[in-house]
Amino acid sequence: MSTAGRVLALSGGIGGAKLALGLYQALPANALAVLCNTGDDFTHLGLRVSPDVDTVLYTLAGLADRELGWGLEGETWRFMDALERIGGETWFRLGDGDLAVHVERTRRLAAGESLSAITAHMAARLGVEALIMPMCDQPVPTLVQTVDAGVLPFQEYFVKRACTPRVTGFQFAGVDRATPPAALTQWLSRPDLRAVIICPSNPFISVDPALAVPGLRELLRSCGAPVVAVSPVIGGRAVKGPTAKMMAELALPVSAASVAAHYGELLHGFVLDEADAALAGTLNVPCRVTPTLMRREADKHALAEAVLEFADSLSG
Amino acid sequence: MSTAGRVLALSGGIGGAKLALGLYQALPANALAVLCNTGDDFTHLGLRVSPDVDTVLYTLAGLADRELGWGLEGETWRFMDALERIGGETWFRLGDGDLAVHVERTRRLAAGESLSAITAHMAARLGVEALIMPMCDQPVPTLVQTVDAGVLPFQEYFVKRACTPRVTGFQFAGVDRATPPAALTQWLSRPDLRAVIICPSNPFISVDPALAVPGLRELLRSCGAPVVAVSPVIGGRAVKGPTAKMMAELALPVSAASVAAHYGELLHGFVLDEADAALAGTLNVPCRVTPTLMRREADKHALAEAVLEFADSLSG
Repeated sequence: MSTAGRVLALSGGIGGAKLALGLYQALPANALAVLCNTGDDFTHLGLRVSPDVDTVLYTLAGLADRELGWGLEGETWRFMDALERIGGETWFRLGDGDLAVHVERTRRLAAGESLSAITAHMAARLGVEALIMPMCDQPVPTLVQTVDAGVLPFQEYFVKRACTPRVTGFQFAGVDRATPPAALTQWLSRPDLRAVIICPSNPFISVDPALAVPGLRELLRSCGAPVVAVSPVIGGRAVKGPTAKMMAELALPVSAASVAAHYGELLHGFVLDEADAALAGTLNVPCRVTPTLMRREADKHALAEAVLEFADSLSG
Repeated sequence: MSTAGRVLALSGGIGGAKLALGLYQALPANALAVLCNTGDDFTHLGLRVSPDVDTVLYTLAGLADRELGWGLEGETWRFMDALERIGGETWFRLGDGDLAVHVERTRRLAAGESLSAITAHMAARLGVEALIMPMCDQPVPTLVQTVDAGVLPFQEYFVKRACTPRVTGFQFAGVDRATPPAALTQWLSRPDLRAVIICPSNPFISVDPALAVPGLRELLRSCGAPVVAVSPVIGGRAVKGPTAKMMAELALPVSAASVAAHYGELLHGFVLDEADAALAGTLNVPCRVTPTLMRREADKHALAEAVLEFADSLSG
């Protein structure tokens, strides 16, 4: 095992970004790559919005709002107020400072640049010494199949309807034509690859979109480094977001065990919270029990260290 | 003459908007239409910016920055700061609140709405009881011919190069395919039309673009109401902007007389500042001498009243 090697983290938004920050701080500069879900991306007010990419970007740059976990610290809302005044759509709120990444990303995409290149450039400008990548450069919008409201675009389900419709499944529109970003293939082919960490993000809407990109799952399986997931479910509840609600609606036990089963053979190891210590012996995958709730900065760092140490113990 | 009739004002940005506000306050509700220059319009950061339309809109809505004459009162600049941080272009500054009109206009234009319809809707939302119209719905970007830097897009001349290149002429790109907005034709065909006022805006870059729209000059000439211009040049100097500098570069006397000559037979009357009282008898057009410098709100109102009274004296 190489404790000096490189790490890939798969992340959705807030919860994933917390562990990504812990890993970023625990690892040497430029030893971390974060592959971000872009299934939540959408075009709003004519602007291309990439919520998870931005959450990871702001978090690693030290600019994220610590209270909310998304958006910019000290954000202001003059744009939204003015937009409301002229009759624009206000159900999805874009902060004044946050607007810059959406406007600039939209402009650069229209000029033919890839989301990968734009994201890497923004991260570099913000002084982030990690590689932040979208799961692919093609738009692959997540569609939520619901009992009550039919098939909904993700943000309409997530923000406009506040996750209330009952879910029966998900579609990743256009994923058949998507390809893993070249930077991911390069990152995974390095001999000093240490671990692949699936952050405690929603398996269905934050990790599955990336795993559905043709070839991506195989890249992870064949990279030679241990693949370790951290459960987003603790004691039968999700720390944040609709994970537990979705599990129930999909008729799955609301348990960390369902997360481990969901990832199945992709995993070499699974990290459980102390609240779920009793599950450790029951799963078909090596487990590590450790505190996984990340309330403070120290929690993120400690979880990152524990996950890395666990991954190292699984390799070689 | 009908002192209850309707008025059309032709306006550029700051100076024109001042008199437009005076007229707005002097006239009954819905008796004023303002035809705005859109030669300054451009696409910046992927957003469609209409500086003169917005200056008139904000001014009549009571939202304009009183100090600057453009932009919103109490504007903030979080977007620009964030844009600079990620390496975006910052030479043309868009305020946080101001961004709303650009984002919303861009979105609605992309959805197929006309600039006229969008502008009218925004004015209505902001409680403006005047008709604010673009000079046409087609993009007609002003190009500035210069000695030193060739042909420059307007904002590159005006903002980026701060009007320093020496001007030899102007082009209104695509104006041959432009048409006056339907609302203008309707406004001018009303029997209660009282006056057409050319505000004290730059003749070359704020009024000529409108007058170059095929059929527009003829509409003004044949509308039956007196056409009165207010000189933007006072005592051989422009109140604001590059009017005097352009006159010198175009080898014209830097004088209100050049403004009157420039508009020529279009005018039924010309309003001169007291500083230029001596010119009044020398021009081939009826003149009215009155204070034209608009420093305070009362100045705008007084000038509007004087111009309307002068126009009334010319009709019938």
